[in-house]
Formats: sequence, structure tokens, C-alpha cells
Amino acid sequence: MTAVADSGFPPWHREPPPPGSWRALFQWGDPDRSQPPAPAMVRLVMDLLAMSETDFQTPRRLGLGPVRLAPPRLAHTARRDLEAMLGAGNVQSDDFARLAAATGKGMLDLLRLRCGLPGPTPDAVLHPRDRHDLVRIVEYCARGGIAVLPRGGATSVTRALECPAGGVALDLRTHMDRILRFNETSATVTVQPGIRGPRLEAALNRAPDWLGAAHPHTCGHFPQSFEFSTVGGWVATRGAGQNSSYFGKIEDLVLAQEFVTPAGTIRTLEHPAAATGPDIDQILLGSEGTLGVLAEATLRVFRLPRAGPRCFSYLFPDWGEALEAAREVLQDGAGAPSLFRLSDPAETEAALARHGLRRPALDAFLGRLGLHPGRRCLLLGWTEGEAGFQRNLRRRIGRICRGRGAVPATGWPGKAWARSRFQEPYLRDHLLDFGVLVDTLECAASWDGLARVHRAVQDRCRARPGTACLAHVSHAYPQGASLYFVLLARLDTIPEYQAFQAGLLDVIRDQGAAMSHHHGIGRMAAPWLAAQLGPVQMDLLRAIKRQLDPQGIMNPGGTLGLD
Amino acid sequence: MTAVADSGFPPWHREPPPPGSWRALFQWGDPDRSQPPAPAMVRLVMDLLAMSETDFQTPRRLGLGPVRLAPPRLAHTARRDLEAMLGAGNVQSDDFARLAAATGKGMLDLLRLRCGLPGPTPDAVLHPRDRHDLVRIVEYCARGGIAVLPRGGATSVTRALECPAGGVALDLRTHMDRILRFNETSATVTVQPGIRGPRLEAALNRAPDWLGAAHPHTCGHFPQSFEFSTVGGWVATRGAGQNSSYFGKIEDLVLAQEFVTPAGTIRTLEHPAAATGPDIDQILLGSEGTLGVLAEATLRVFRLPRAGPRCFSYLFPDWGEALEAAREVLQDGAGAPSLFRLSDPAETEAALARHGLRRPALDAFLGRLGLHPGRRCLLLGWTEGEAGFQRNLRRRIGRICRGRGAVPATGWPGKAWARSRFQEPYLRDHLLDFGVLVDTLECAASWDGLARVHRAVQDRCRARPGTACLAHVSHAYPQGASLYFVLLARLDTIPEYQAFQAGLLDVIRDQGAAMSHHHGIGRMAAPWLAAQLGPVQMDLLRAIKRQLDPQGIMNPGGTLGLD
Repeated sequence: MTAVADSGFPPWHREPPPPGSWRALFQWGDPDRSQPPAPAMVRLVMDLLAMSETDFQTPRRLGLGPVRLAPPRLAHTARRDLEAMLGAGNVQSDDFARLAAATGKGMLDLLRLRCGLPGPTPDAVLHPRDRHDLVRIVEYCARGGIAVLPRGGATSVTRALECPAGGVALDLRTHMDRILRFNETSATVTVQPGIRGPRLEAALNRAPDWLGAAHPHTCGHFPQSFEFSTVGGWVATRGAGQNSSYFGKIEDLVLAQEFVTPAGTIRTLEHPAAATGPDIDQILLGSEGTLGVLAEATLRVFRLPRAGPRCFSYLFPDWGEALEAAREVLQDGAGAPSLFRLSDPAETEAALARHGLRRPALDAFLGRLGLHPGRRCLLLGWTEGEAGFQRNLRRRIGRICRGRGAVPATGWPGKAWARSRFQEPYLRDHLLDFGVLVDTLECAASWDGLARVHRAVQDRCRARPGTACLAHVSHAYPQGASLYFVLLARLDTIPEYQAFQAGLLDVIRDQGAAMSHHHGIGRMAAPWLAAQLGPVQMDLLRAIKRQLDPQGIMNPGGTLGLD
Repeated sequence: MTAVADSGFPPWHREPPPPGSWRALFQWGDPDRSQPPAPAMVRLVMDLLAMSETDFQTPRRLGLGPVRLAPPRLAHTARRDLEAMLGAGNVQSDDFARLAAATGKGMLDLLRLRCGLPGPTPDAVLHPRDRHDLVRIVEYCARGGIAVLPRGGATSVTRALECPAGGVALDLRTHMDRILRFNETSATVTVQPGIRGPRLEAALNRAPDWLGAAHPHTCGHFPQSFEFSTVGGWVATRGAGQNSSYFGKIEDLVLAQEFVTPAGTIRTLEHPAAATGPDIDQILLGSEGTLGVLAEATLRVFRLPRAGPRCFSYLFPDWGEALEAAREVLQDGAGAPSLFRLSDPAETEAALARHGLRRPALDAFLGRLGLHPGRRCLLLGWTEGEAGFQRNLRRRIGRICRGRGAVPATGWPGKAWARSRFQEPYLRDHLLDFGVLVDTLECAASWDGLARVHRAVQDRCRARPGTACLAHVSHAYPQGASLYFVLLARLDTIPEYQAFQAGLLDVIRDQGAAMSHHHGIGRMAAPWLAAQLGPVQMDLLRAIKRQLDPQGIMNPGGTLGLD
């Protein structure tokens, strides 16, 4: 086992992907920041999946060859019209651009690209310059029956970006990535949909310098895809940031929208609250490109208090007590922590192992505190907001946790997590090079059903050889929480993967949990969602679709089960 | 002026309304608790509207005669079918019951009834026994093209209850007023729509005894109509309780619904949060009876902390500083107060006068603190939640208010307000007996527009002789607040009233404020809402209506501008 520590083992593929290659498409993030897993991580994976060094001899299906697609089917006249509308430089139809626009970061996307089997792509990628371009494109495509797919950072893991009807993808990041208005008095920012997380957050953090504000602010929304995903993507999927227990999900953060549909443009009003009939924002939010294109979003923002966020962490003797404590914290009436991440025993052991903390002496010491390997659970969190509010909340959390037998585990786990919060996805590709799949799935359940959902998913994974399931509560509310599953499996063929995932989605549906808490539905979970909602609700959603998109051009082909 | 103190002046009409009379319909609340205004109140009204004792000589249009309507138009066969379906005792068609079902507590309702001019009524009032009855009624009426109007406590002030197409009104209070499930683990209660506020709240407060819970709870929703309005009415209108700044509006409190529509029954799922496409709950919420009938609602509930709510109050030197302080409190990051009621100078003087506090010595004392009559503003509020959270929040509020020149005004105003919180509506009828109209109107605006909206409404009122406008911020958010206007006017004819109200609705729309924050839209503000939303949004709402109610039987005739 010592060989793992050797720099030559496993023989990681460390070169940046060749430009234009399949790998350049599926490899996560910034190639310069891609780091193979640390030795402790490899040992952990080998332990969990009962693998040996032999399994890590030769990386395979690296996808280093150039992307090749069938030629686009867009009519010559359509291409010419679009070039006349947007400028030739804003209409792309090379293979790489087309496939990039239609490829998310779900495991199916990754497996397909590694096999050189691209999913359905658009015929062209357009780069609209402003809202007027959006209106023109949507009108033109509606007339011509050309499918339109708005795309954000393409970090979707739900097959929301596939283009089974071809058509055009809209890359909103190129020109529509600006902050349009910052209103400090009413604590809002209005942005274009293509702006990415870091740019928005940097501007808000430096609002006194950059936006002429009296106070620095934050957007409060930090999904794991933060560095690459866009506001438009957050809104389209009903995403959640890792700190949403305090700040709210994106549907809580959107105050108003300008939204271009084939039936016309909707501009909702920037009211703090209203009693003016059905909430149209909440119809458009989460519509995953099936109803129209977001042209502008006005988001609530938060003043950054002088006291930055503070970490806390506790180790619990078991999962049941930990869940009870989590529930009590959220129902206590002292406010919500921002990050609130409670790992199950499997994930807790994995986290300790990764950080080299599974040592006999430490285990013995923790054992004397009632914290035994395989049962103990790690809670880590942050508080946010005004300093006195944070102090009181941490005091209450401590009291509740200790009342459930937990032991404080210092601020270190929270800080370690913060350092690596956006790094995790980089590990997936390196492991998949050796046939180790690392996938995620998430759902939401009420407190009285949470342990049952967790157990059912775990049981399903245990029943499959060479499979491990690590889980945590990732976002918590007074009524329940989301469960986030990290799935490790020796598995690298598409049919095996599809069967594995379908089985887990069956479990989630059968348990009555929400089919997604923040990833969205896409084409992946659409059949399960349709079954859960039933015909009356599905028909209502389809009527909304017909009204706003009568020609059915907006992201057609199964997203949300609408066609 | 001393005559006012005399028990014989004004010659209030103190007798309980004769059974079956117009007055029995329009007089607010419990006849045994009806108290005429105190002498200080009468003096205040006389001052505000430049009235003299002569104006209070003779009460008029008391509506003591019996209600008489044109006979119902429901076909004999339909009546027989409904009786067979529900039992004869659950089908009423006497004049009083029919008019009661179609009459809210808006000023137009009151003026009409006083004139013996009933608005449009249903042909029968049905008392469904359970959800199966609701399904049967809706199916039957859809087949027969019979209009259906679900009603709650009939405290609507927006003309939502009129029945221009006749048909049947559903009184859900008679049999469908039960608590179905209480889930302490997930902090929810599931109720039938006809349950009234006090019954729900009493059961939750006594949850340890009545519902087998470990802790007492609260529903957190206390509209001024609390004693009479129903959960179904709260949900249908997107209402807000007086303490909603902490607990949330009803759309934040509804977790799931069972909702019977002509197209079938919708049951939304009890998920704490989800990313599963458009939010169907938020389509049904606020639909004001136009899409279907609520059969069950699952509401979030809150643990009652040992520390009860605590009052605070401050007097500010002027409205501008007070609004700034209110904004800072909500944006501070220390959590929100529950009650947060900031009176403008006019309302502040009225409140002081009503409580006999406009005395030269007190004015001189306050003047030395910079608090001058006609400029000073009263803020009163409560904190709610865990004791330490409350303590910290009150400390922060104090700091912010004092930083804006405010002076603490003790807990007395908050307690005095609490004592009379549900009493105010009782005064209206007594004053209207003497031709003094006391009406209310409310809207919501962002912080950067709030002062402008307030000024515009005030200016409009000032331009009308014999009119006064008292206003307060009634519910506050980080992005803005609602403005609640109490309008006093010498005015008792219907056309005068309609012109007056239309002028104010014009102002609210022109200022870009939300047409309602918590009263809803009804038929009253529908034309203004339609103008504000524009054709694309209105067409979307109409498409939703068509899908769920293709025959157009649900509350037809202009509510929300849908037909």
C-alpha cells in the first residue's frame, strides 16, 4: 500500500488536455488548477471499493483525440440571417463549440465524451449581445421552428443542455455578463444572465470602490459550480448555494426578472412582497430554458457585516442524534447558520481518512468520548450576519449539539472545507481515468422522512458490489433538509451507469423525497418528476409551456417532461 | 367640545342589529363586542375632517330593515341534485345567507348594504362536508356551467366575493374547519380551509395537551381579520399577518396544498425546498378562488419559545430618519422583528391624541428632545423567537434608532396596540352612521420608492376637502416595505367613494408600487393590476385559468382580471 505515496503511482494523466479534444470538453474547470487526488484519497477509494494497485495501472479512455461531429443541419439561409442579425463573429458552428454548448458535467456527459459518442448538439452557437438580440433570435427561431437552448456555465448534471432537435444554443457569457444596476438603498443588484459567480461577488464585495456604495455586499449564493456557473444558470435550475440555509435558495434571492419568451417579453416588478395573484417569478424560475431566456435578473443582496463568517464543528456519537440536533438547531428560533453540513458515518470516516486523521491513538481518544468509527458523524457549519446574531446562534448551536452528546471539533474542519470547497470536482476526471466513477445525486425530504430516505439510498448502493455511498445533509430548513449523496463505483460503461442511476432515482421517488433540491431536473429526472407530480400538475406545466412557447422551440426534447 | 365627553353625544346606535337585517350583515364582528369610538377618537375625527357637533346629530342609513333579494335563479333540478349530493341541510337559499356569502367588509360592500342595494349574490350557499364533496360539487357545476365561489370568513375588502354570474357559494367554515394532522418533527400542521385563526392558534399554543406535542407552537399568522378569517382565505388572497416580518407571509407559510379544480385535484408535496421546475404552490396561492378550491393546506408552524414576544418603541424626529432606521434594521443581518409598525407624522399625532397624550406639557418635554408635533413618528414593534436572538435584535434596533435621533418610548405603545389589535374595525360602522368613512388601502414598495409613494398618496388625499390620510409601514423586508393607509373622509355616497378610491389606485399604480401587499386584488384593483402586469403576463395567467377551469366556473366575473 505504501506505493500509493509514490509520486509515480497511480500514473495520473497530468498533461493539460489537447485543444479541441474530447478531454478539453469533459475535464472540470481550469486545466492549470487540476490536481490529481492525494495519496490518502486514493487509499480511501481503494478501501471503499475493494480495489488493488492493479486496478490503477493504466489510465484509459482519456479522450485525447479531436472532437468530430456530424455536420450541422442548419439551413444556409438561416445561418446567413443569424449572421446578419448578430454579426458573423457571433455565430459559431465548429464541432468543438457546438459540442461544448450541449455538454454538461453530468456523469453521462463524461462517459459519452470519453467514448467519443457525443450527445445531441446544436447546429450553431450564438453569442447574443444584448436583450434586443435575445428578442430577435427568439422571434426568428419561433417563425422558423428552430430550437433554442440558452446555456450558462454548462455545469449542469441533469442532461439539461442536450439538443435533440438541433437548433441554436445561446452562449450568454460572451457579451451578456454585466452588472446593470446596483441599488444599495433597496439592497438589490440587476445583472445580465451570463455573469459568473466570482465576477458578481467581487463587484459586490468591493461595492464601495466599484459600485459607489457605502458598504461591501455579498450575493450569498455559492454553489459548488460557483467559479463557472452563471446567474442565468442559477435561476434556470432553482439552484442553491452552499450557504443557502442563511441566505436562501436562488428562488428566494430573485426579486424580479426580464424574461424573453416566444409569446413576448415578461418584466416582473421589483416589489419586496405582494398579494397580486399567482407569482409569475416562481413560474419562470426553474423552467430550465423551456419557457424562454432570462435577459435580466434583479437579485437581493446582503450587506457584508464587519464580522466575517465564523466556523463551528461538532462530532456526534451517531447519525440519529446528529439529525435530531440539526433539526433542533433549525427549529430553535435563533436564526439559521449559513453553511450547515452534516456528514453521515460513511462520509465522516472518509473525511477523516482523507485528512490523515484515522489513527489508532486518535480513534482511542475519541472512543473514550463515545465517538466510535463507523458511527460518529461530523457537523460543520458557518454562521453569517451581524456579530451579536452570530455569537448567539453559535452559543445555541453548541448547547443543542452538546445536549445530543456531541463534542466540539474546533473550527478546523470548517476552514479545511472552505479551502477545498470548489476543488472537489477536479478529482472526478482523474479517478474516472481508472474506471472509478464519482457521481452525485441529491434530493430533499422533511425531517420525519430524512433518515428513511438516507437508509433506502444506502441500502440500494450496498446491494451493488464495488459501490460506496457517502452522504451529508447539505441545506437545512425548519421543515426538513436536502440529502446529498456522493456515489463511488467501479463502473465505466454507459448502460451500467444508467441502470445504477435509475435505480437510485426510483428509490428517491418511492420514498416521496423531492427529485431534486438544487441540481434541477433536466432530461435526467424528468420521467420520475412527471410520475411524482401526476397528470393534473404536468398538464398545467404543459399549458404554461404552450402559452409562452406555442411552437415548442425552447429547449425541446424532454426537459422537465414538458414534451 | 366638552359635550363630546357626554355619554349622550354622539347619539351612537348601540343596539345589536336586528336578525336578518342589512346591518347584521355589514356590522363588523361580534355584536356583543361592538363599542362606539371613545370621546378622544371622536374629537380627533372632528379635528381631522373639520367637523362640528352638528355633523354628529343624527345617525343615518342604519340598515335596520330586513334583507330582501330577487329570487335565486338556480334551476329546480340543480337544487335537487345538490341537496341529494350534500343533504338538504347543506344547501341554503334564503336571502340573508345568499347575501352574506357574497358580501365582504370593503367600503363598497358597506355603502351598498346601507343603501339596501345588494351586490350580485349566489343562488345558493353550499356547506361541503369534506374534500369528496368539493370534488363532486366542482365536477357537477363544471358540467352544468354553474359558477362556484369558495368563501372563507368573508372579511375581503376587495370585492372578491361578488357573484355576478350567480351560482353557488361554498361556506367552508361549517364542516371543513378541522386540524387533520400535526407533525411536530417536521414542524407542520395540515388543516381544512374553513378553520379560523383563533381555533388554529389555540390548538397550536396548547399542542402539548391537545395535539400530543412536546412543545407549544404558533401559526405566526395574525391578520387584523384573525378572529373571523380562515386559512383558506389567507391562502386565497396571499395575506400577511401583523407579525409577518418575522414569520413570513402566508405564501412563505404554505408548504403543500390539496386543491380541487375543474381539471382535477392537485396535491403538492411537502418538501422543505425543491428544484423541480415551476413552483405550483405559488401558482395556486393568491388565485382568489379563480382556479379552484383549497381542500387542505399544510402550513409551517413555529415552536413558541419560553420567552414570549417583547415590545419596543421609539419616537423619531421625522419620517425620513425613521424610514432610514427601519431600512437599516431590516438590512442589519441580526434577523427581523415580528411586528414592525412605523407610523407617519399624521398617524403618530392621531395615536397620541387617541390616547390623550397631546398635552402641552408633554409636547414641550418632547420638543426639547427634538420631537415636534406634526413631524415626529412612532415606531412600535415586537421581537419574537429564542430569547438571546430577541435580546440581541432589540439591542441592535435600539442602537440603529438612537443613531437616527430616536428616543425610546417604552414598551407601553406596543402593549396598548396589542390590546386593541383586533378592535379597530369595530369603529368603522359607528362613524359611518354619521357619514364618516374610514377606509384602508395598502401597497408595497422598495425602500428607494417608499417615501415617494407615501407622499403621492398623501398629496392626493390633501387635495380632497374633508379628507385625512394616516399611514404606517406595516410589514418590512430588506428590500422594502408595505405602506398601509387609513383614509378618513366625509363621504357616504357610492359614486363619490368609487371616484375617491380609483384616484388613489391610480396613484399607487403610477408610482410603480405593488397594487396590494396583503389584501389581494379581487374585482376592486383588477383593472389596475392588469395594466401593471401587461398583456404577456395577463395572457399567461389566463392560460393557467383556462387549463384548470376550462368552463370558467370558478369565481367568474373579473377577479384578478382573468375574464
